[in-house]
Amino acid sequence: MVSTSLATVNFYAPIQDLMLQVEQRLRSQADSHHPDLGAALDHLLSSGGKRIRPAVTLLAGTMLGADTDSLVTLASAIELLHTATLVHDDLIDGAVLRRGITTLNARWSPAATVLTGDFIFARAARLAAETNSVTLMRMFAETLATIVNGEITQLFASRGNASRENYDQRIYAKTASLFELAATSVAMLSPVGEPVVEKMRCFGYDLGMAFQIVDDILDFTGEQATVGKPLASDLRQGLVTLPAIYYLEMRPSDPDMDAVLSGDPGAPVDMERLVSAIRASGAVERALQEASDYIDQGLACLAEMPDNPSRRSLEDLARYSVERRL
Amino acid sequence: MVSTSLATVNFYAPIQDLMLQVEQRLRSQADSHHPDLGAALDHLLSSGGKRIRPAVTLLAGTMLGADTDSLVTLASAIELLHTATLVHDDLIDGAVLRRGITTLNARWSPAATVLTGDFIFARAARLAAETNSVTLMRMFAETLATIVNGEITQLFASRGNASRENYDQRIYAKTASLFELAATSVAMLSPVGEPVVEKMRCFGYDLGMAFQIVDDILDFTGEQATVGKPLASDLRQGLVTLPAIYYLEMRPSDPDMDAVLSGDPGAPVDMERLVSAIRASGAVERALQEASDYIDQGLACLAEMPDNPSRRSLEDLARYSVERRL
Repeated sequence: MVSTSLATVNFYAPIQDLMLQVEQRLRSQADSHHPDLGAALDHLLSSGGKRIRPAVTLLAGTMLGADTDSLVTLASAIELLHTATLVHDDLIDGAVLRRGITTLNARWSPAATVLTGDFIFARAARLAAETNSVTLMRMFAETLATIVNGEITQLFASRGNASRENYDQRIYAKTASLFELAATSVAMLSPVGEPVVEKMRCFGYDLGMAFQIVDDILDFTGEQATVGKPLASDLRQGLVTLPAIYYLEMRPSDPDMDAVLSGDPGAPVDMERLVSAIRASGAVERALQEASDYIDQGLACLAEMPDNPSRRSLEDLARYSVERRL
Repeated sequence: MVSTSLATVNFYAPIQDLMLQVEQRLRSQADSHHPDLGAALDHLLSSGGKRIRPAVTLLAGTMLGADTDSLVTLASAIELLHTATLVHDDLIDGAVLRRGITTLNARWSPAATVLTGDFIFARAARLAAETNSVTLMRMFAETLATIVNGEITQLFASRGNASRENYDQRIYAKTASLFELAATSVAMLSPVGEPVVEKMRCFGYDLGMAFQIVDDILDFTGEQATVGKPLASDLRQGLVTLPAIYYLEMRPSDPDMDAVLSGDPGAPVDMERLVSAIRASGAVERALQEASDYIDQGLACLAEMPDNPSRRSLEDLARYSVERRL
């Protein structure tokens, strides 16, 4: 169920049973509907995702004393919202692999892929409604709008954009908004007051920002076989992420980088040299330091939370998010 | 705002102000998001839709004494859910025109079209949450799942399927489920008891079934310029609707119909002759009688509702739905 590369990391320990319940809940979502939907959902769910978002939700909820039934429902809703956006994302990017496994759009028609994503949105919404919190439902809807608006902005306006502000907005929309939703909503379902909810919101935001920065670093440093896509895949598409932004600050006139930023797909770029130059420049280390700073801020938000095994695992998960190689 | 072809039908009279508020609410949904999203939404909303679903919602709600703010929110949510499914539907069908106006996918990339549909889903969900009813939120999510499951079933399993059961399931998923949602949810927001909610559910179901049967009839009888797509467009794609089902009962061995049902796109079909034969057979009249029977059932459900101008307009709308030519 959980990918083996994480078997050495023990932060799932306090929530193993709940993680199994989430997995069952996720896999039961196509019940009584078209069998191909069930097959598609199985394929998506078996693609070795780390289930980081459900883990954050369950650890935060058990740390704060939330009811476990609501927790499983919420964690499943969060993971399905994430899954649905990935399905449409892969279709839009024309991606054929995710984590080394074929994407739905590579196996199925675009039409079936669009509809499967829609179906998973519907199931995420149903699960969110099952938490019986209207406020939480609104937050789900707002987060979906944020994620989609971020993707549309990226589609139209982000190629060749090396502004730091644009980057921060992009990674918030793409990743941090959903971590923020997970941490905030689980606090709202717990017997805690507004100040704790706010601290958890900050924790989710910080963790999400760090998580995406590390994803962007791994795009430069990861092994292709592990990451499951070509090195510097973002930069190849003209998308400038944090390591490239820092590199630009240090080397403002690299002709290969200029060619990438020009947005001209015909411009000749020696991508291997550019990636090597970025890796050798110290830009990756600066980006990693920034992710690490976000995690420190996030851990500080947890400082006044109940001291129990779930909190310690949540801290482990946060630290792992900057140490991971996958 | 409301298409001129309906100017002669007066069922909007009791809800004119509310319809304007719905229109404003719909058009404000892209606020503060990417400008191209606003442009896309404007294009979609200006394509001359009849806004039948908001009209049903508003008339039913004013008939039953619902709070008008909630009504405008609910009617907008229903129309946005409908709009989002149309956006993805047109993309899947590769449709270039809807009501004679270019579809979003014909103007934009498939990627932007997928995302615009997703954004509109998110807005529909937010508006549904603003009604502050968790039950209603769940019903929205279930209805979206029903609609999408119907589309997936149609994609994989409905070509050449002439079974009556399959047809009933398809038109429920495609159209009646959303009319049912509109009528049921508006009753739930009104100061009425469970028996009235159940009567309204039946009314919505009957109206929706009739509405889709008439759409399917117009596909055989409508003027191409009015309907905005080629005659018998469903049958050309192998989709068997009620007039064709009745024709098959009467003429079980028409070689052109056999060719359509074979699902072989290379089979030679004289579609003009087949459509003429169906129109001459009496099958269209039988289908229209069935739509009319649904409306009679629906009107019977309204029999014990408060007798006021909204109820009379709702009855007019129901009768119009079988008399319309568009």
